[in-house]
Amino acid sequence: MPRLPEARPPAKPSSQGQKDRHSQMLRAAVKLGSQQDFERVQMQDVAAESEVAIATLYRYFPSKVHLFVGVMRAELEKVDPRDLQVDADQDLGAVVTDLLMLFTKEMYANRRLSMSMIQSIILSEGLDSPDSAVIEEAFLALLLRVAGWHRDPTEDQRRRCWLVIQCWFGVLVTTLSGNRPLESAEQDLRRACELLLAVAG
Amino acid sequence: MPRLPEARPPAKPSSQGQKDRHSQMLRAAVKLGSQQDFERVQMQDVAAESEVAIATLYRYFPSKVHLFVGVMRAELEKVDPRDLQVDADQDLGAVVTDLLMLFTKEMYANRRLSMSMIQSIILSEGLDSPDSAVIEEAFLALLLRVAGWHRDPTEDQRRRCWLVIQCWFGVLVTTLSGNRPLESAEQDLRRACELLLAVAG
Repeated sequence: MPRLPEARPPAKPSSQGQKDRHSQMLRAAVKLGSQQDFERVQMQDVAAESEVAIATLYRYFPSKVHLFVGVMRAELEKVDPRDLQVDADQDLGAVVTDLLMLFTKEMYANRRLSMSMIQSIILSEGLDSPDSAVIEEAFLALLLRVAGWHRDPTEDQRRRCWLVIQCWFGVLVTTLSGNRPLESAEQDLRRACELLLAVAG
Repeated sequence: MPRLPEARPPAKPSSQGQKDRHSQMLRAAVKLGSQQDFERVQMQDVAAESEVAIATLYRYFPSKVHLFVGVMRAELEKVDPRDLQVDADQDLGAVVTDLLMLFTKEMYANRRLSMSMIQSIILSEGLDSPDSAVIEEAFLALLLRVAGWHRDPTEDQRRRCWLVIQCWFGVLVTTLSGNRPLESAEQDLRRACELLLAVAG
């Protein structure tokens, strides 16, 4: 279990050299997090693997929680919502289910790393973790866009998308842990999206 | 972070003396878990506080994860569903929201202990934790009963209640961490229950 992070906020990479080292650290976290459970990953090993000084690692990621939340953010930023084709005649719930299953399958493919990201997201709540807030807002924005609600969404539309995320989170955790198969995750998410995104008639 | 538990399944208390010691251990976990974060709670301190040998503690709870899942189960068993008055003319979503807010407020009152229980529930998924399965089934049964769907529920009724639990879980974590106030939890849960439990017209 990680120590509570220091009060100092994490540094942001600005120069190209800093951005490169930042990516190296995230890649090292992905590599070690794929090989070991969260509790076993050591910050000094991540520093060694990414060939940066331990102080540099801590400057950008004040704790292991910050590091794996950073990995999650980087993963989410790889998705370009413009790649997601949505036809006008497609069912809203079906489109969002497809998107969520895309993430679910990707995370299922590397369950160990995914559990580290999930544990970090939960442990980071309430901490001063800027990446955590970015992830929440980016995921919400992605869902609103895919639902076609991104232009000036109502409070209720934002709430419904947020509830879809909460539901997905629960389904994801149970699926990753192997307590429910991928097919039942898909059925659950389909029904959740159908009900939560239903347009009042 | 707790070590992975041993393969040996946890013992069940049968004699009255064993049941008393079992309760003592759970009470000690509640006391220490209210004072310290999950990672700081030590199994030897729990054994000392409950006045049992460390081997006895491990026999009933092979890991700290098992221990705090046990605390969660004991908390849930305190609720008697027959105490929950449901009038025939009451709105289904409102009744379930009230029940969930009852739990949310209780868990909010001891956030530190609640976060330990939540972390344990997540870490226990996929482990051989009988209490974890009992909690899931008991909570589902409680929701089905409060929704009035407990007599021979359809697969869809079970799924809807399960999705309500997943949603509640996400809302609970965000609320306990202080990222959302209790009032917004109530609004979120009200809307989730309204949509997820809506009876098709």
